Amino acid sequence: MQALKDRICAEGRNLGNGILKVDSFINHQVDPILMDACGAELASRFRHLNPVHILTAEISGIAPALMTAFHLGIPVIYARKVKPVTMPDQVFLTLAPSHTKGRMVELILSPENISRGEKLVIIDDFLASGMTILGLARLAEAAGAEVVGIGALIEKSFEKGRENLGGMNIPIESLVRITSMEDGGIEIGE
Amino acid sequence: MQALKDRICAEGRNLGNGILKVDSFINHQVDPILMDACGAELASRFRHLNPVHILTAEISGIAPALMTAFHLGIPVIYARKVKPVTMPDQVFLTLAPSHTKGRMVELILSPENISRGEKLVIIDDFLASGMTILGLARLAEAAGAEVVGIGALIEKSFEKGRENLGGMNIPIESLVRITSMEDGGIEIGE
Repeated sequence: MQALKDRICAEGRNLGNGILKVDSFINHQVDPILMDACGAELASRFRHLNPVHILTAEISGIAPALMTAFHLGIPVIYARKVKPVTMPDQVFLTLAPSHTKGRMVELILSPENISRGEKLVIIDDFLASGMTILGLARLAEAAGAEVVGIGALIEKSFEKGRENLGGMNIPIESLVRITSMEDGGIEIGE
Repeated sequence: MQALKDRICAEGRNLGNGILKVDSFINHQVDPILMDACGAELASRFRHLNPVHILTAEISGIAPALMTAFHLGIPVIYARKVKPVTMPDQVFLTLAPSHTKGRMVELILSPENISRGEKLVIIDDFLASGMTILGLARLAEAAGAEVVGIGALIEKSFEKGRENLGGMNIPIESLVRITSMEDGGIEIGE
């Protein structure tokens, strides 16, 4: 997707260790016009699968997931990392490694809003190793839902997320694919 | 705002201690169509002030802030509660009490995206005691920005946020005002 690619070229920064800083339009400051366009594009790629929910993880997944859900006209659910007092005592919980935090984080899903057998699409800002998305998929499975697609704004293909998620055998869509961040650069695939 | 009021009447739950559960359309599951309508309404109330940023706090502020920013065509910045590795070493940090967490939380703002003298509007999901919003206002002030308005989806007027923010002498807008949650009820103002 050209608009996102252009923005990464203009403002993205390679901080080393595979960390791409996109704080000026995705992760701290968010450009809602760009995010709306990304959501429209992701929605167009998953509409034919008829999902009834978008599932994401707080925090940075919320903006792209919300805009994708908006264009599909379906609700988004974001897994929490700390159980809020408003959630029931019995929840689904799994652990996933956080690349930017350097430790395991909890992903918590309430059983209240998901129905057994329903179809959902997972959306996140990054597809890196795929471990967060695998965690979300475990939560969905625990809730009896069927994950029918996976989408991300930015894929770091050198971190092998697509391979790690390959066993799920469902469509994986990313809007921009970064093929290398070696030597301080940011190489973007076609 | 009638659509939000209707939804609170249908799905909101009074959990006691002033905690309103709206997990099925704002805080865990988000209805993007409703959130878009709320964003459009908040945007219409602040457009004449010509803000250049919406400022909010993660996590639950992101959805309403993003949609408000979308309708104003300006970026949103969300204060982080944990400093990500992508932020510079020097940041603005303040503490605010979290009603639902029962402890103080950090609110962290990067100086990178805010300009001295710029106008911004603070948007959050709830206006309760106003302490989170006061924290955001302190961050904005530290960054040299001018807070020109405050907006929330739901105001719990019995928690006196409007009084606590009164010293700022700027417009405060909420879409639904809850006047009492005594005896397990949810009373909504006109």
